[in-house]
Order: sequence, then C-alpha cells, then structure tokens
Amino acid sequence: MPERLAPPLAEPLVGRLALIGLGLIGSSIARAAQHLKLADRLVVSDASPEVRARVRVLGIADEVTETSAEAARDADMVILCVPVGACGTVAAEIGGALKPGAIVSDVGSVKGAVVAAVGPHLPAGTHLVPAHPVAGTEYSGPDAGFATLFLNRWSILTPPEGTDAGATDVTRRLWEAMGAQVEIMTAQHHDLVLAITSHVPHLIAYNIVGTAADLETVTQSEVIKFSAGGFRDFTRIAASDPTMWRDVFLSNKDAVLEMLGRFNEDLAALQRAIRWGDGEALFDLFARTRAIRRGIIDIGQETPEPDFGRRHGEETTD
Amino acid sequence: MPERLAPPLAEPLVGRLALIGLGLIGSSIARAAQHLKLADRLVVSDASPEVRARVRVLGIADEVTETSAEAARDADMVILCVPVGACGTVAAEIGGALKPGAIVSDVGSVKGAVVAAVGPHLPAGTHLVPAHPVAGTEYSGPDAGFATLFLNRWSILTPPEGTDAGATDVTRRLWEAMGAQVEIMTAQHHDLVLAITSHVPHLIAYNIVGTAADLETVTQSEVIKFSAGGFRDFTRIAASDPTMWRDVFLSNKDAVLEMLGRFNEDLAALQRAIRWGDGEALFDLFARTRAIRRGIIDIGQETPEPDFGRRHGEETTD
Repeated sequence: MPERLAPPLAEPLVGRLALIGLGLIGSSIARAAQHLKLADRLVVSDASPEVRARVRVLGIADEVTETSAEAARDADMVILCVPVGACGTVAAEIGGALKPGAIVSDVGSVKGAVVAAVGPHLPAGTHLVPAHPVAGTEYSGPDAGFATLFLNRWSILTPPEGTDAGATDVTRRLWEAMGAQVEIMTAQHHDLVLAITSHVPHLIAYNIVGTAADLETVTQSEVIKFSAGGFRDFTRIAASDPTMWRDVFLSNKDAVLEMLGRFNEDLAALQRAIRWGDGEALFDLFARTRAIRRGIIDIGQETPEPDFGRRHGEETTD
Repeated sequence: MPERLAPPLAEPLVGRLALIGLGLIGSSIARAAQHLKLADRLVVSDASPEVRARVRVLGIADEVTETSAEAARDADMVILCVPVGACGTVAAEIGGALKPGAIVSDVGSVKGAVVAAVGPHLPAGTHLVPAHPVAGTEYSGPDAGFATLFLNRWSILTPPEGTDAGATDVTRRLWEAMGAQVEIMTAQHHDLVLAITSHVPHLIAYNIVGTAADLETVTQSEVIKFSAGGFRDFTRIAASDPTMWRDVFLSNKDAVLEMLGRFNEDLAALQRAIRWGDGEALFDLFARTRAIRRGIIDIGQETPEPDFGRRHGEETTD
C-alpha cells in the first residue's frame, strides 16, 4: 500500500487540463496534478469569485479563468468538480467551447443522473467518461483539499456503452497517477452500490444528529457533552457539504429509497427484538458485523488503530 | 484540556481497590490506578481463566484472585466492570464478602437496571455509587485497555437518593484523578441521555452494517471496497463487544424504544422529502447538523482534524 504520492511523471498525461469547481475534490485534484505534473497546463474556474480569488492566492493552478467556457476552450480534458445538480448547467456552458477529441469527466457521487444531464450538451467527437473518486473529508472549499486525498482510495469510472477506449484509458491513468485504484462498472450499478456504502449512511447520520438536536427531554448541551459514547462518530459525515448532499439525494432517488427500505425493514426487526427481549437475535447480528470491519481494514480502506486513531492523550511511561 | 495523566497521588484515595472484570474498561482502570497510585492495593478478578492468566502476565494489578468474592473481601471500594447483564450475578457473589462502609460502583452503560439488579444484594452499611465513564474504543479484552482512556471524557455518577455523600465524593475523586470530568444525574435521566448519544447510534450502526452484508444486488466485496464513502465510519462502533451491547439493549429497552421512535419518525420525513424531491427540506437539515459537530469539537470531545485524523499518506512537499 503506497504511503506517498509517486514522483512527477516524466511525460504529462494530458496537454491542457481544465477543472471546473475548486472545492474539496477539485482543489485536491489541482494539488495532485501540480505535484505529479499530470498536465502541461492546468486551467481552473469556479462560479464563485471568492473561490477564484482564493485559488489564485493558493497558487494551485497555472491559470484561473472567469468562466467555465474559457477554462474548457482548447482543453484536452475537462473535469467537472461541482455538485451533481450543477453538472448539466456547466456542461451547457462549456459544450460550445470544447474541441474535437476532448474528454469530459466529473467526480459526482451519482452517475446515472450526471450522464443524463451532461451527455446532451457535448458535441459529437468529444468523449464523456464519468468518474467518482470514493474519497473525501467533512470539510469543503479550496483550502480543504490536499494532494494525497485519493491515495489508496477507489475511483469508479462509468463510461457509457460505446465510449472511446482511449478516452477511458487516459481517465484511468489520471486516477492511477493520483494513487487511486480504478474500477469500471455501469452507472446504474454504481448508483446502487453507492446508495448503500455512502448515500444511506449519510442520510441516517444527518437524521440522528437532527433527532438528537430536536429532543425536549435531553438538552443539546447534554448531547454534545456525552457524545463520545458513539454519537460523535455520526456528526463527522453529518458535517458534509449540504448542497452536494441535497443533490445526491435528489438525483439518486430510486436507489436510495430502495436501500433505505431495506435498512428500515432490518431496523424494524431489531426494534422488535428489543421489545420482546430477544437477546439471541441481537447477539447474532452484533457478532457478525465485526467481520465486515475486519475486511475493510484488511484491504487497507480503514485504519486498524482503535477509535480511528483519535488521540487519547500522551502515552504514560509505566 | 490536559494532554496527559497527572503524576501519582501523594496519598492513595482508597486502601484496597477491587476490580471485577478486566475487559477494555476494567483493564484501563487498572492501568490508570497503577500509574496514579489510586489505591494501596489493587486486587482484580475475572470470570474467565484466560483473562486472569493474561492479567497476571500484563502485571496490571497487585493480586489476581480466582473469585470475585475473594477480590471484594475487605475491599474499601469494588468496581464492577462486567456487562450490564452480569452485574446482578456478581453483586450476589460479592455481597457476603463486603465489609461495612465499602463502596460498590460499576461502569455500565445503563444505570436504572444496574441499580435494580445490584442494590438488593448489598448489605446494610455499604454504599452503592453507580458510574458510567462515557469512553471506549471498538476493541475488547485486557490487552485493549490503556491508562489514558478516560482523559477528558465524562464520567456520569447516578447515586440513588440518600446515598452517603462521602462515598459519592470518593467515587468522584477517583474519576477526576483519572482525568475525567464528573456529572451527577438520576439513573433515569442518564438512561434517556445515553439512549440518544450512544445506544441508538450503536443500534443503527449495527443495523446498516447488517443490511449491507445481506444485499443480493451489491456484493459484500463491493461494500468493503467502496466503504470510504461513509459506510466504514459505522463499522467501527458496529465492531463493539456483542455481549456488552446485547445487555445494553435488553436493559434500557424503554428509553431506546422511545428514542428509536423519534429517529424513525424523522427518517420517514426525510424519506418523503427524497421521494417528493423536496430539496429545501433536505438542505435545511443538512445545514443545521454542522453546528452540533462544531459544539462537540469546541468542548474538546472530538478532534477538529479532517476524517477523525485518519492518515492520508505522507505530506507532499510542494
């Protein structure tokens, strides 16, 4: 398992690379692209003037343009790093500026809706290779990114049937250069897999934090003070970007509702086991869930350190 | 916020301290008690011969006895560090061995049931001061403990009305010596607070991991590979000790079912918002949950580091 980014490439993978949207993901790609020399020229844009100004100060791109179309003009590859709900709008903005052979990719957590929203705006002769790096933190914005965010994480590509193999290959190599492992699947299957590994987990985390905040019998101050009993773990992903996550739920509705249905069904069974004092049913579930974590640790997607490696004060010497 | 344990006490807080059960919590108390010299003599016992043997090897107590009654005999303070469901049995074992004035405490995550189970076995003239340190990791057993586990955590005491003030005070000073902050409340209120800050979070974590493991449309290997999208956070508390947690749910049934009812009600509203495409309702919830995490970080119960401080590879230098 690599511990650091590879040295810069001898030869850039793409000529002109454009990134639209410089939040956590976009700014992490920018930093990695700079460090690894993935492109001859890195041009970026963002709808927010504040973000554009900040990116200039951070110096994480060769050029910051006012509009997404300027960034995309003559680009060999354009990556949309905006909330899923904004992908269609950005595609409409850049469509006319794309040169023949340009690759358009994205980083959205939902893929079917992105293909449907972006595809119609792309001129013939350009290539759509949707991507989803399964990586992130709970922080947002251009200051939150870092070059090693994708190291040892998976990036899922969902090229529609008939996509140019060369375009898919360049996209794959870009993610592999950033330290990611690449898997290819259909957009539909992606959306089902991520509904259970990411979307429903976020939904129930947001939900429990909301429930706890709204109680009358337990104060918010008590919830905060005694959160180390488990609750605080949920607050991390419930601190994720609200716009991004609103868009995820609106654009992956069917898969989320299906997985949520399963979750609710299983929770009702647990609720019943508690009500009727069925200790055996509880123990059986609680004993088998350990194996899943062990599998996640074994393939390097999680730390084996207790408590995620949170610090518990300095070691005592005796 | 102290970063390390205090130096050893000039004067021990108790003469003979007995710990029954040397799992994560018991063995952490033993290590802290040794380091801090909380007692003149530290005597421990555990129902498992393997654990007793291991504790002898670890050398984290002055004496390891075969039975809990031997450990409790002549003890000034006995702390039960066993699953909640075992507290009554242990209390029955030690009741006859307790000397007048002895303090009996515990570390259980449920308090009403412990008072009900333990109280009747304690002879007149002894003092029951139930305690719950809100601290832990997902690991179990005598090797998992460490002396700084309680540093900057809360320990909740629930002395029944009429409890000897001196006994409560000794218990308070014991936890404060180990670096914990102490709060006193009724057992009933404790059980309600912990139902939302700990018990229901554990239940939904166990549940989502179980749901994910049982799907037909997404393989277990996919769940494991793509877990960094949020799911893996839940696997940590779903790797907690199954016996301990079975007992928690069986013995805090009413409060858990009440809080679970609230959780389900709120989740149904979110589900409806997704089905009907109500982006505003989703955004509103997702935006206000951030404040709770900020509060938890501000009082030092959580790290401000992204992703719980998980490592993301070594820093790049440029």
